Amino acid sequence: MSSWLDEVRWDAQGLVTAIAQDAHSQRILMVAYMNRESLQLTAQTGIAHYFSRSRQRLWKKGEESGHLQTVSELRLDCDGDVIVMQIVQAGGIACHTGRESCLYRKLVDEQWVVTDAVLKDPGAIYGGHASH
Amino acid sequence: MSSWLDEVRWDAQGLVTAIAQDAHSQRILMVAYMNRESLQLTAQTGIAHYFSRSRQRLWKKGEESGHLQTVSELRLDCDGDVIVMQIVQAGGIACHTGRESCLYRKLVDEQWVVTDAVLKDPGAIYGGHASH
Repeated sequence: MSSWLDEVRWDAQGLVTAIAQDAHSQRILMVAYMNRESLQLTAQTGIAHYFSRSRQRLWKKGEESGHLQTVSELRLDCDGDVIVMQIVQAGGIACHTGRESCLYRKLVDEQWVVTDAVLKDPGAIYGGHASH
Repeated sequence: MSSWLDEVRWDAQGLVTAIAQDAHSQRILMVAYMNRESLQLTAQTGIAHYFSRSRQRLWKKGEESGHLQTVSELRLDCDGDVIVMQIVQAGGIACHTGRESCLYRKLVDEQWVVTDAVLKDPGAIYGGHASH
Protein backbone atom coordinates (compact mmCIF):
# COMPACT_ATOMS: atom_id res chain seq x y z
CA MET A 1 0.00 0.00 0.00
CA SER A 2 1.50 3.28 -1.09
CA SER A 3 1.55 6.03 1.50
CA TRP A 4 1.37 9.79 1.09
CA LEU A 5 4.63 9.79 3.06
CA ASP A 6 6.34 7.88 0.25
CA GLU A 7 5.57 10.70 -2.16
CA VAL A 8 7.76 13.05 -0.17
CA ARG A 9 11.30 13.25 -1.52
CA TRP A 10 13.39 12.86 1.62
CA ASP A 11 16.99 14.04 1.28
CA ALA A 12 20.11 11.99 2.11
CA GLN A 13 19.54 12.72 5.80
CA GLY A 14 15.89 11.70 5.54
CA LEU A 15 14.67 15.29 5.87
CA VAL A 16 12.52 17.84 4.05
CA THR A 17 12.28 21.60 4.51
CA ALA A 18 9.16 22.63 6.45
CA ILE A 19 7.76 26.16 6.40
CA ALA A 20 5.28 27.41 9.00
CA GLN A 21 3.03 30.17 7.68
CA ASP A 22 0.56 32.05 9.85
CA ALA A 23 -2.87 30.90 8.68
CA HIS A 24 -4.36 34.35 9.29
CA SER A 25 -1.72 36.95 8.40
CA GLN A 26 0.13 34.66 5.94
CA ARG A 27 3.43 35.78 7.42
CA ILE A 28 6.16 33.15 7.27
CA LEU A 29 7.00 32.43 10.91
CA MET A 30 9.77 29.86 10.74
CA VAL A 31 11.55 27.35 8.55
CA ALA A 32 12.92 24.07 9.88
CA TYR A 33 13.17 20.39 8.95
CA MET A 34 11.01 17.29 9.26
CA ASN A 35 11.76 13.62 9.01
CA ARG A 36 9.17 10.98 8.22
CA GLU A 37 8.19 10.49 11.85
CA SER A 38 7.72 14.21 12.51
CA LEU A 39 5.63 14.73 9.37
CA GLN A 40 3.45 11.75 10.24
CA LEU A 41 2.97 13.02 13.80
CA THR A 42 2.17 16.50 12.50
CA ALA A 43 -0.57 15.11 10.27
CA GLN A 44 -1.94 12.77 12.94
CA THR A 45 -1.99 15.20 15.85
CA GLY A 46 -2.49 18.54 14.07
CA ILE A 47 0.43 19.92 16.08
CA ALA A 48 3.70 20.79 14.29
CA HIS A 49 6.57 18.36 14.90
CA TYR A 50 10.01 18.91 13.41
CA PHE A 51 13.35 17.14 13.44
CA SER A 52 16.06 19.11 15.21
CA ARG A 53 19.29 18.84 13.23
CA SER A 54 21.37 20.26 16.08
CA ARG A 55 19.97 17.82 18.64
CA GLN A 56 19.34 15.03 16.12
CA ARG A 57 15.96 14.18 17.54
CA LEU A 58 12.24 14.60 17.11
CA TRP A 59 11.23 18.07 18.19
CA LYS A 60 7.66 18.96 19.07
CA LYS A 61 7.67 22.73 18.61
CA GLY A 62 6.72 24.36 21.90
CA GLU A 63 7.55 21.30 24.02
CA GLU A 64 9.54 23.58 26.35
CA SER A 65 8.16 27.02 25.59
CA GLY A 66 4.50 26.07 25.31
CA HIS A 67 4.49 27.81 21.93
CA LEU A 68 2.75 24.99 20.09
CA GLN A 69 1.73 25.31 16.46
CA THR A 70 -1.74 24.09 15.46
CA VAL A 71 -1.73 22.98 11.84
CA SER A 72 -4.76 23.48 9.58
CA GLU A 73 -3.22 22.62 6.21
CA LEU A 74 -0.24 20.76 4.79
CA ARG A 75 1.05 21.32 1.26
CA LEU A 76 3.83 19.65 -0.73
CA ASP A 77 5.77 21.34 -3.52
CA CYS A 78 6.28 20.13 -7.09
CA ASP A 79 9.67 18.57 -6.31
CA GLY A 80 8.29 16.87 -3.20
CA ASP A 81 10.99 18.24 -0.93
CA VAL A 82 9.22 21.21 0.70
CA ILE A 83 6.26 21.17 3.10
CA VAL A 84 4.25 24.33 3.78
CA MET A 85 1.99 24.37 6.84
CA GLN A 86 -0.78 26.80 7.67
CA ILE A 87 -0.58 27.26 11.41
CA VAL A 88 -1.90 29.10 14.43
CA GLN A 89 1.00 30.02 16.71
CA ALA A 90 0.35 29.70 20.45
CA GLY A 91 1.62 32.72 22.35
CA GLY A 92 2.17 34.58 19.08
CA ILE A 93 5.89 33.78 19.29
CA ALA A 94 7.53 31.37 16.85
CA CYS A 95 11.17 32.45 17.18
CA HIS A 96 13.52 31.30 19.95
CA THR A 97 14.63 34.95 20.23
CA GLY A 98 11.15 35.78 21.58
CA ARG A 99 9.89 37.38 18.37
CA GLU A 100 6.74 36.62 16.39
CA SER A 101 8.70 35.40 13.37
CA CYS A 102 12.22 34.13 12.72
CA LEU A 103 12.29 36.42 9.67
CA TYR A 104 12.88 39.57 11.69
CA ARG A 105 15.77 40.96 9.65
CA LYS A 106 15.28 42.92 6.45
CA LEU A 107 17.92 44.04 3.96
CA VAL A 108 18.16 47.87 3.87
CA ASP A 109 21.10 49.61 2.18
CA GLU A 110 23.28 46.49 2.34
CA GLN A 111 22.58 45.88 6.01
CA TRP A 112 20.34 43.41 7.82
CA VAL A 113 18.07 45.60 9.94
CA VAL A 114 15.99 44.16 12.80
CA THR A 115 12.35 45.07 12.21
CA ASP A 116 10.63 43.12 14.97
CA ALA A 117 10.57 43.68 18.70
CA VAL A 118 11.29 40.92 21.22
CA LEU A 119 7.87 40.15 22.69
CA LYS A 120 9.14 38.00 25.53
CA ASP A 121 12.61 37.52 26.97
CA PRO A 122 14.03 34.14 25.86
CA GLY A 123 15.22 33.55 29.43
CA ALA A 124 11.64 33.80 30.59
CA ILE A 125 10.42 31.53 27.78
CA TYR A 126 12.91 28.73 28.29
CA GLY A 127 13.75 29.09 31.97
CA GLY A 128 17.36 29.94 31.33
CA HIS A 129 18.42 27.30 28.82
CA ALA A 130 18.44 28.27 25.16
CA SER A 131 16.30 26.13 22.90
CA HIS A 132 13.39 26.34 20.50
CA MET B 1 34.98 45.45 5.60
CA SER B 2 32.22 43.13 6.71
CA SER B 3 29.52 42.44 4.14
CA TRP B 4 25.86 41.62 4.64
CA LEU B 5 26.64 38.52 2.58
CA ASP B 6 29.02 37.31 5.28
CA GLU B 7 26.17 37.27 7.79
CA VAL B 8 24.41 34.59 5.78
CA ARG B 9 25.18 31.08 7.03
CA TRP B 10 25.99 29.23 3.82
CA ASP B 11 25.81 25.44 4.07
CA ALA B 12 28.57 22.99 3.09
CA GLN B 13 27.59 23.44 -0.57
CA GLY B 14 27.63 27.23 -0.22
CA LEU B 15 23.85 27.48 -0.42
CA VAL B 16 20.89 28.85 1.53
CA THR B 17 17.19 28.11 1.17
CA ALA B 18 15.32 30.89 -0.65
CA ILE B 19 11.55 31.32 -0.48
CA ALA B 20 9.62 33.45 -2.97
CA GLN B 21 6.41 34.87 -1.52
CA ASP B 22 3.88 36.83 -3.56
CA ALA B 23 4.13 40.41 -2.32
CA HIS B 24 0.42 40.96 -2.81
CA SER B 25 -1.39 37.70 -1.93
CA GLN B 26 1.38 36.46 0.41
CA ARG B 27 1.10 33.02 -1.14
CA ILE B 28 4.35 31.05 -1.14
CA LEU B 29 5.16 30.53 -4.80
CA MET B 30 8.37 28.51 -4.80
CA VAL B 31 11.32 27.40 -2.71
CA ALA B 32 14.80 26.98 -4.15
CA TYR B 33 18.45 27.68 -3.32
CA MET B 34 20.86 30.57 -3.65
CA ASN B 35 24.62 30.79 -3.50
CA ARG B 36 26.51 33.96 -2.69
CA GLU B 37 26.61 35.14 -6.29
CA SER B 38 22.89 34.64 -6.85
CA LEU B 39 21.93 36.45 -3.65
CA GLN B 40 24.22 39.35 -4.53
CA LEU B 41 22.76 39.56 -8.03
CA THR B 42 19.23 39.39 -6.64
CA ALA B 43 19.92 42.34 -4.35
CA GLN B 44 21.75 44.34 -7.03
CA THR B 45 19.30 43.82 -9.86
CA GLY B 46 16.01 43.41 -8.02
CA ILE B 47 15.38 40.26 -10.07
CA ALA B 48 15.45 36.85 -8.37
CA HIS B 49 18.51 34.72 -9.13
CA TYR B 50 18.92 31.22 -7.73
CA PHE B 51 21.48 28.44 -7.90
CA SER B 52 20.24 25.36 -9.71
CA ARG B 53 21.40 22.26 -7.85
CA SER B 54 20.48 19.95 -10.72
CA ARG B 55 22.37 22.00 -13.29
CA GLN B 56 25.00 23.28 -10.82
CA ARG B 57 24.92 26.80 -12.15
CA LEU B 58 23.55 30.28 -11.59
CA TRP B 59 19.89 30.37 -12.58
CA LYS B 60 18.08 33.61 -13.30
CA LYS B 61 14.47 32.60 -12.74
CA GLY B 62 12.55 33.16 -15.98
CA GLU B 63 15.64 33.21 -18.18
CA GLU B 64 13.90 30.76 -20.54
CA SER B 65 10.23 31.17 -19.67
CA GLY B 66 10.21 34.95 -19.29
CA HIS B 67 8.63 34.43 -15.86
CA LEU B 68 10.96 36.79 -14.02
CA GLN B 69 10.49 37.61 -10.35
CA THR B 70 10.79 41.25 -9.29
CA VAL B 71 11.99 41.45 -5.69
CA SER B 72 10.78 44.19 -3.33
CA GLU B 73 12.11 42.84 -0.03
CA LEU B 74 14.73 40.41 1.25
CA ARG B 75 14.64 38.93 4.75
CA LEU B 76 17.02 36.63 6.63
CA ASP B 77 15.99 34.25 9.39
CA CYS B 78 17.39 34.00 12.91
CA ASP B 79 19.77 31.16 11.99
CA GLY B 80 20.95 33.02 8.88
CA ASP B 81 20.25 30.10 6.55
CA VAL B 82 16.89 31.07 5.06
CA ILE B 83 16.07 33.99 2.75
CA VAL B 84 12.48 35.13 2.20
CA MET B 85 11.75 37.37 -0.78
CA GLN B 86 8.66 39.43 -1.46
CA ILE B 87 8.17 39.20 -5.19
CA VAL B 88 5.96 40.08 -8.13
CA GLN B 89 5.75 37.10 -10.48
CA ALA B 90 5.77 37.90 -14.19
CA GLY B 91 3.12 35.94 -16.06
CA GLY B 92 1.57 34.83 -12.78
CA ILE B 93 3.32 31.46 -13.12
CA ALA B 94 6.15 30.43 -10.79
CA CYS B 95 6.04 26.65 -11.22
CA HIS B 96 7.67 24.75 -14.08
CA THR B 97 4.43 22.73 -14.31
CA GLY B 98 2.68 25.90 -15.52
CA ARG B 99 0.92 26.62 -12.24
CA GLU B 100 0.89 29.82 -10.19
CA SER B 101 2.68 28.17 -7.26
CA CYS B 102 4.82 25.08 -6.74
CA LEU B 103 2.72 24.36 -3.63
CA TYR B 104 -0.23 23.02 -5.59
CA ARG B 105 -0.76 19.80 -3.62
CA LYS B 106 -2.68 19.69 -0.37
CA LEU B 107 -3.01 16.79 2.06
CA VAL B 108 -6.62 15.57 2.24
CA ASP B 109 -7.48 12.23 3.89
CA GLU B 110 -3.90 10.96 3.59
CA GLN B 111 -3.62 11.88 -0.08
CA TRP B 112 -1.88 14.73 -1.87
CA VAL B 113 -4.64 16.40 -3.87
CA VAL B 114 -3.88 18.84 -6.70
CA THR B 115 -5.69 22.11 -5.98
CA ASP B 116 -4.33 24.34 -8.74
CA ALA B 117 -5.01 24.32 -12.46
CA VAL B 118 -2.24 24.41 -15.04
CA LEU B 119 -2.42 27.95 -16.44
CA LYS B 120 -0.11 27.35 -19.37
CA ASP B 121 1.21 24.18 -20.92
CA PRO B 122 4.87 23.65 -19.94
CA GLY B 123 5.67 22.75 -23.55
CA ALA B 124 4.44 26.18 -24.62
CA ILE B 125 6.41 27.86 -21.82
CA TYR B 126 9.75 26.19 -22.48
CA GLY B 127 9.51 25.34 -26.16
CA GLY B 128 9.65 21.62 -25.61
CA HIS B 129 12.53 21.23 -23.16
CA ALA B 130 11.73 20.90 -19.49
CA SER B 131 13.31 23.50 -17.24
CA HIS B 132 12.44 26.19 -14.76
